[in-house]
Amino acid sequence: MLKPLGDRVIIELVEEEEKTASGIVLPDSAKEKPQQGRVVSVGTGRVADNGSKITPEVEEGNLVIFAKFAGTELKYQGKDYLVLREDDILAVIG
Amino acid sequence: MLKPLGDRVIIELVEEEEKTASGIVLPDSAKEKPQQGRVVSVGTGRVADNGSKITPEVEEGNLVIFAKFAGTELKYQGKDYLVLREDDILAVIG
Amino acid sequence: MLKPLGDRVIIELVEEEEKTASGIVLPDSAKEKPQQGRVVSVGTGRVADNGSKITPEVEEGNLVIFAKFAGTELKYQGKDYLVLREDDILAVIG
Amino acid sequence: MLKPLGDRVIIELVEEEEKTASGIVLPDSAKEKPQQGRVVSVGTGRVADNGSKITPEVEEGNLVIFAKFAGTELKYQGKDYLVLREDDILAVIG
Amino acid sequence: MLKPLGDRVIIELVEEEEKTASGIVLPDSAKEKPQQGRVVSVGTGRVADNGSKITPEVEEGNLVIFAKFAGTELKYQGKDYLVLREDDILAVIG
Amino acid sequence: MLKPLGDRVIIELVEEEEKTASGIVLPDSAKEKPQQGRVVSVGTGRVADNGSKITPEVEEGNLVIFAKFAGTELKYQGKDYLVLREDDILAVIG
Amino acid sequence: MLKPLGDRVIIELVEEEEKTASGIVLPDSAKEKPQQGRVVSVGTGRVADNGSKITPEVEEGNLVIFAKFAGTELKYQGKDYLVLREDDILAVIG
Repeated sequence: MLKPLGDRVIIELVEEEEKTASGIVLPDSAKEKPQQGRVVSVGTGRVADNGSKITPEVEEGNLVIFAKFAGTELKYQGKDYLVLREDDILAVIG
Repeated sequence: MLKPLGDRVIIELVEEEEKTASGIVLPDSAKEKPQQGRVVSVGTGRVADNGSKITPEVEEGNLVIFAKFAGTELKYQGKDYLVLREDDILAVIG
Repeated sequence: MLKPLGDRVIIELVEEEEKTASGIVLPDSAKEKPQQGRVVSVGTGRVADNGSKITPEVEEGNLVIFAKFAGTELKYQGKDYLVLREDDILAVIG
Repeated sequence: MLKPLGDRVIIELVEEEEKTASGIVLPDSAKEKPQQGRVVSVGTGRVADNGSKITPEVEEGNLVIFAKFAGTELKYQGKDYLVLREDDILAVIG
Repeated sequence: MLKPLGDRVIIELVEEEEKTASGIVLPDSAKEKPQQGRVVSVGTGRVADNGSKITPEVEEGNLVIFAKFAGTELKYQGKDYLVLREDDILAVIG
Repeated sequence: MLKPLGDRVIIELVEEEEKTASGIVLPDSAKEKPQQGRVVSVGTGRVADNGSKITPEVEEGNLVIFAKFAGTELKYQGKDYLVLREDDILAVIG
Repeated sequence: MLKPLGDRVIIELVEEEEKTASGIVLPDSAKEKPQQGRVVSVGTGRVADNGSKITPEVEEGNLVIFAKFAGTELKYQGKDYLVLREDDILAVIG
């Protein structure tokens, strides 16, 4: 199991068929093309300046959209993942 | 449905006819041309440095003006949207 | 009506005659020439780091001076406006 | 009257004769030559991160030294002024 | 013994055999390839803006993934270590 | 008299003879050569983010070391001074 | 005596023989080679954003490792020192 730290979130990339089903089509002309993925693991959250934890808004299983060039790619037990900061997630679909 | 995170807002771009009706004409010589759109979804708000949530000022249905190059374009179920941070919105019309 | 968000202020540009009347003459050699305008609408104010609102100092009707290259131009119902952050306003005249 | 906003201060530039009287001579080789002026108007002060106002240290009438390239020049009712942030003032003479 | 300061963590690099065992395979095409290591020492934690200590999330013995170009290399008593800030650690494996 | 504002400090440069007496010799190969001076005036201190004043650590009369390219030079009543921020002072000798 | 200000620390550079004894060998290929030294004087600590002092973690006599290009070199009474911020210290050996 991979457990992200702080405000990080681990995303499993979503295949094209699932994208069509969820209704997202990415425009060809977009300057910064967003991508889709499913959240598989969520960190404990960012620490605010006063030392308190900020509970993440996303949860395991959420289908999310994020900016294309965000995060770090990772292959674990044969699957591709992306490690993002929660702030790189634009929206939840559903 | 698309639900933006944090201080993000989802905007549906407004067609030219609606712009004329609302009275906005964008000057040709503007360095940074603003654009219009209608708010379709609002995040839960930015988290202040002391960990409290800041309630967004815009609401679903608001007609808003924003800087042209802000945000990320997105096509969902055949419609064009823009995901902005609330701070990229200059003003509400109405 | 245009209602600016947060710490933004909407300014109507002031014509040359009014400038002379108010006594401001802009020096030719200034590196960054300031400009004059009248405040037509004021946002609810900036949110401080502890989440509280900071009441803006300017009010509707104030004649103000601001740095020339600040803000975003906008034409609304045939008039030219400028959307500024309050911090871009240098001084109030009067 | 010109009333600066926030942490801004309006300065009237001081002529050479007054400089000699006050004893300041600016070195020729200085990388960043400071200048002198008299404070004619003071803003209400900077807002701290917790939302409280910080009372400015300078007062109307203070003779001050500031870095040469700071601020914005302004001509008002035939006189030359400079609008500075208080933090651009290095020292008060007197 | 090496004791890192503040939010720093000391990592012992993990050999290829151990990587295969833990199931991580790094993609060839990754822009920024992550690396694996085992935590051998943890600092007392970052100091929040209000002066309180933030307890680190990682512990001695954790197998972690971090961005390739983070940190400072160090050889101590014949072994290679890396000194990282905790925020450079992407995830814990296990 | 010159009174610095906020976290600024006014320094009188120290002559070579005094440097030798105090035991400081500056290395030829230093990337950033430090300099010596005597504090002649201290501001009221920096304002913390919560609006409170931070009492300066240096006092009038302290012999201090500072980075060579810090601050603004000033000639006042025939003497050379330097206006520094307290944070540009590396150490007090004594 | 040299007394550093705020979050600064004064380090006496450690000779090669002592390095071997303490077990640190610096790798040839390191992008940013760390160095060793002994702490001879510690400032009173950094001031947090709420105005409180943060007690330094290092103490006089500590053998420490720091990034090679950090700090300012200084020769005092015939010895070489380095003035660092505490955050430039990576780890304490011991």
